Amino acid sequence: MRRIFDDELTQMNAQFTKMGFKVNEAILKAVKAFINHDKALATEVKENDKDINAMEVELELFCFQLIALQQPVSADLRSIITVMKASSDLERMGDHAVSIARSVIRVKEEHSKRIPEVEVQIGEMAEVVKQMVEQSIDAYVRGDVELAKTIATKDSIVDEYFVQINRFCLKEMASDPAVVFGGADYILVAGYLERIGDYVTNICERILYLQTGKIEELN
Amino acid sequence: MRRIFDDELTQMNAQFTKMGFKVNEAILKAVKAFINHDKALATEVKENDKDINAMEVELELFCFQLIALQQPVSADLRSIITVMKASSDLERMGDHAVSIARSVIRVKEEHSKRIPEVEVQIGEMAEVVKQMVEQSIDAYVRGDVELAKTIATKDSIVDEYFVQINRFCLKEMASDPAVVFGGADYILVAGYLERIGDYVTNICERILYLQTGKIEELN
Repeated sequence: MRRIFDDELTQMNAQFTKMGFKVNEAILKAVKAFINHDKALATEVKENDKDINAMEVELELFCFQLIALQQPVSADLRSIITVMKASSDLERMGDHAVSIARSVIRVKEEHSKRIPEVEVQIGEMAEVVKQMVEQSIDAYVRGDVELAKTIATKDSIVDEYFVQINRFCLKEMASDPAVVFGGADYILVAGYLERIGDYVTNICERILYLQTGKIEELN
Repeated sequence: MRRIFDDELTQMNAQFTKMGFKVNEAILKAVKAFINHDKALATEVKENDKDINAMEVELELFCFQLIALQQPVSADLRSIITVMKASSDLERMGDHAVSIARSVIRVKEEHSKRIPEVEVQIGEMAEVVKQMVEQSIDAYVRGDVELAKTIATKDSIVDEYFVQINRFCLKEMASDPAVVFGGADYILVAGYLERIGDYVTNICERILYLQTGKIEELN
């Protein structure tokens, strides 16, 4: 009985990790589409989002069955609830990738004037976010609390990028009306990346909870 | 034993409802602060957010204990998981109220030039969102699936407000550099309200799930 349960927990973790990689891929593609002004790639991100949503639903049903049939307690129950809660965070990270993709399509259609310096900054910001996402999946798989704490500290770097990009865009928009439309999109995209960073922090908090049983705020 | 469990489920629902009212209050105050340029009220919203966060943590621990001790199945387990998942949505709605409050403080400090027409539109948009939030708590308490479906349809109205406000602000910002800073904040605030509408839709989906056991997307 216990062996079956262990197998099921392993399967649950594998599905969660798979969902994490899928979301990371969506974020990477959305940012790549943004930087390369690639509408086809952006459309792909939009279309793939339904798979991510379906994965969350599947995971939840799987977790539900696990609780109902195995009636787990303590650490086992904690890991199931973690997957249930954290899969919502992953799903929303996927939604933000879609929002970035939508912005690519919009900018492309409106032929907005671009600000190359900001695109470079968004690329750098996305690189930090990407590392955070990847490392958080790794920390989850290995139950690595120290890594989870380190990742959460990087959220301040992401926040700082957001503040800088926001400030720079507004200044440019105030001095050149031609960049107003594109500039507003840069601010939105930086905002989505900033929130993805927040969700990663939530997942890191969950990794701590798994080990300690305490729900604490990181960062 | 069953009577104790029923009492505990009632207590869980009461706590969830209380959290819902608290979040609704935060949204109302944030919007009121925004419309009346009331920095003191905005600061209050920011400070009260830690109570909302604490409520989510408490609810989760309570739900955890309920599952571990009562080993619920089917409808009972579903209602506990609903509260666990939906309390994350409420908590994030509270975060967005804080973001609106932060924007009030920022606009106030920067003495940005305002666009009165947009403030009227944001007021109207907030009124729709407020009704959605209140009605969703009501639908949850009464397990009213039809009401939940009706509320979810209102999300399109909220989305439409967002599109209109966004478009109008960008036009104004392109024609008058003095409104660039304030205009960007209007877009952000409308964006927060739009996302609160999305979270309400999630809660409505949960109300359906409680009754049907199926996780379906509304709207």
